[in-house]
Amino acid sequence: MSMKWLSFLLLLQLTCYFNSGNCGKVLVWPVEYSHWINIKTILEELVSRGHEVTVMTSSASIFINTKKEFGIKFENFPVSLTKDDFESIFQYLLEKWTYMEKDSFLSYFSAVQTLFLNYSDVIMKMCKELVSNKKLVTKLQESSFDVILADAIGPCGRQTTLSETMGKAEIWLIRTYWDFQFPHPLLPNFEFVGGLHCKPAKPLPKEIEEFVQSSGENGIVVFTLGSMITNMTEERANTIASALAQIPQKVLWRYSGKKPDTLGPNTRLYDWIPQNDLLGHPKTKAFITHGGTNGIYEAIYHGIPMVGIPLFADQPDNIAHMKAKGAAVKLDLETMSTRDLFNALNEVINNPSYKQNVMWLSTIQRDQPMKPLDRAVFWIEFVMRHRGAQHLRPAAHDLTWYQYHSLDVIGFLLACVATAAFVITKCFLFCYRKFLKTGKKKRE
Amino acid sequence: MSMKWLSFLLLLQLTCYFNSGNCGKVLVWPVEYSHWINIKTILEELVSRGHEVTVMTSSASIFINTKKEFGIKFENFPVSLTKDDFESIFQYLLEKWTYMEKDSFLSYFSAVQTLFLNYSDVIMKMCKELVSNKKLVTKLQESSFDVILADAIGPCGRQTTLSETMGKAEIWLIRTYWDFQFPHPLLPNFEFVGGLHCKPAKPLPKEIEEFVQSSGENGIVVFTLGSMITNMTEERANTIASALAQIPQKVLWRYSGKKPDTLGPNTRLYDWIPQNDLLGHPKTKAFITHGGTNGIYEAIYHGIPMVGIPLFADQPDNIAHMKAKGAAVKLDLETMSTRDLFNALNEVINNPSYKQNVMWLSTIQRDQPMKPLDRAVFWIEFVMRHRGAQHLRPAAHDLTWYQYHSLDVIGFLLACVATAAFVITKCFLFCYRKFLKTGKKKRE
Repeated sequence: MSMKWLSFLLLLQLTCYFNSGNCGKVLVWPVEYSHWINIKTILEELVSRGHEVTVMTSSASIFINTKKEFGIKFENFPVSLTKDDFESIFQYLLEKWTYMEKDSFLSYFSAVQTLFLNYSDVIMKMCKELVSNKKLVTKLQESSFDVILADAIGPCGRQTTLSETMGKAEIWLIRTYWDFQFPHPLLPNFEFVGGLHCKPAKPLPKEIEEFVQSSGENGIVVFTLGSMITNMTEERANTIASALAQIPQKVLWRYSGKKPDTLGPNTRLYDWIPQNDLLGHPKTKAFITHGGTNGIYEAIYHGIPMVGIPLFADQPDNIAHMKAKGAAVKLDLETMSTRDLFNALNEVINNPSYKQNVMWLSTIQRDQPMKPLDRAVFWIEFVMRHRGAQHLRPAAHDLTWYQYHSLDVIGFLLACVATAAFVITKCFLFCYRKFLKTGKKKRE
Repeated sequence: MSMKWLSFLLLLQLTCYFNSGNCGKVLVWPVEYSHWINIKTILEELVSRGHEVTVMTSSASIFINTKKEFGIKFENFPVSLTKDDFESIFQYLLEKWTYMEKDSFLSYFSAVQTLFLNYSDVIMKMCKELVSNKKLVTKLQESSFDVILADAIGPCGRQTTLSETMGKAEIWLIRTYWDFQFPHPLLPNFEFVGGLHCKPAKPLPKEIEEFVQSSGENGIVVFTLGSMITNMTEERANTIASALAQIPQKVLWRYSGKKPDTLGPNTRLYDWIPQNDLLGHPKTKAFITHGGTNGIYEAIYHGIPMVGIPLFADQPDNIAHMKAKGAAVKLDLETMSTRDLFNALNEVINNPSYKQNVMWLSTIQRDQPMKPLDRAVFWIEFVMRHRGAQHLRPAAHDLTWYQYHSLDVIGFLLACVATAAFVITKCFLFCYRKFLKTGKKKRE
């Protein structure tokens, strides 16, 4: 079955060609939550340029709203899992990962691996149901797509290795840029398009704008822990609310749990907030974030210092980057006290170095030769126009592991040396014996 | 003295700031011949964008015409070397390198090294005369330049290593792109701007256009060995002319030596040809080139198959790239026969794969997210705007060689292991002796 899915992928790649005119057919294999928010920006741009975009989405899909997204076609396939099951799986993953022991690297690594294998099993099961759906597969094959845009965190393609996955793609669109990353070597088929969703702030809804304006000179703090977390323990919520109550800023907190008892009059809870519009508001002084790349990039783009409370996945690493660049203070959700959060907010708001550093990141983000979204779309269109981007693909992907490490060459050279040594030894022994015999004969 | 030159460089970097408005002050340290042709394209673009460009040029300068280049300022400094001396040095270098034994890598490498050291000595001598010129140095210091654009093949910066030179620059503008290069890892402060001088062909001078049109269906062949070679032995010239006389195409040969006896009626000699306009002419079928990057990129841009006759420096490597990509046939100037050249021309003109392959390279060159010249100018302006591009510079440059190879970490870990082993051994010996003593006593 897994082989079938692989050949299905190959088949799509083989039939790809660029349709007449400048418009192509794009097949998308997305991932839920923030990953969908991010890729949707690219898809909307592709649609606005006249491309036909088809997104594969299962009947258990949580976040991918098949009706709302204008212009995108959805290919919904039935799976045995329900939406509630799928959501519980994600919530379980989230909770286990967030509250995991992080003291020992080895135990943390193995626990994360177990979680990932469970998650992969679920995705794999859905994949199998998709490829067994002969009618749908035939339909997809007949559609002759020009390119597949897949999120690498949700592979289908049996168990695979990172290096195999890397070798398969024509172009890698990476969700960061050099304001976030430390400079390191890269390959020519990597495009760092982090922050491609960033855009100037739109005006706020009237009620929110009034609350923001009521903050006066002190300004506001924006607080959200992302699209996945909607709740936390009552004790943690009270610790946080109590710290927020002590700062002179007004606070907009995206939180749909029970209202904490210690909530101050300066803090308002929201089920949803217009995050980008708030971060781009001139009154915004700080951003309390879990450290997802989408939020971090909006903060970078608008130049807002951060207090990072990372939960799981790449979030601790993301916040570590922002801390190293002097744009954030890092806290631990489980262990932080009211004073810790108060101090952290005080630090990023009143120590001017944080604003200065994040403004420099904002400058880097905005001062690029070409906008990240335009670069992302350019390379997707390039792959469609030319059936790939082979000229950017390192030949290393076509080598076996022993070729990659030159073991075949080293082995051959060693064999040559060994053969030479063997022949020389044999000759020497032969001469020696001959000499010995002659010597003996002479003596005799 | 060498320290002085180094501090001079540093001083310029320290005083750099971005002038009011969008216009900056650029100081250029150029290299003669084709390197100047290439960098001039960037300088002209900088001037047209309103920047003030000052080029350092010595009284011995050969190719850098201080009067002709509109809008560029020249800072001419006197040196004891005459222009004739300087030209002889280059001609000596060229001849030695071209006719060097290339059979053994080691002897070739050491011969090239000797040539380069001689060349460096000459450049260094000129540098010393420049930095001793107190009036000029004061003038340059007072000019407060925003950026230095230097050609790395002519460093001044005492004897240095490649890795030290690499660490000094904010941005590296590389004279190739992924049509020419094989995909390999790169650093984020590398911009591959090969072919930045390429542009559509302009109409030819009347006399040349008439000759080109007279070729009819067969078309023409363009032949030049670059800006440095003006002459060759009579025997070689006759071998070449004789091959050219046998092809049905008309040939435009840039050659200022004695007219070869075997020159056919289809071949015309020129002291200078409008190379780019000829390569962009629809009648052009092939390009015979020495393989300098400028010429190769014009051929790639216009999609013209090549016969490569590399002479020295990077030219053999350049032609090897074009051969590997199926866009060129390679010949050896010293050993090739009339038949070899005839066959090579026949192959690249009549075997359609050469045209097809070079057209694909042309597609890659033209289908970029942003033109190479625009990218080059963007990053020069970026360095001026922000006093550098530190966010793209790998921290590896700040490490010592033992840090770079983690030898300090490995050393520390080994020391830990050694200490532990020592302590354990000592303990064991101590216990063993104690036990031995007790045993002895008991026996006694």
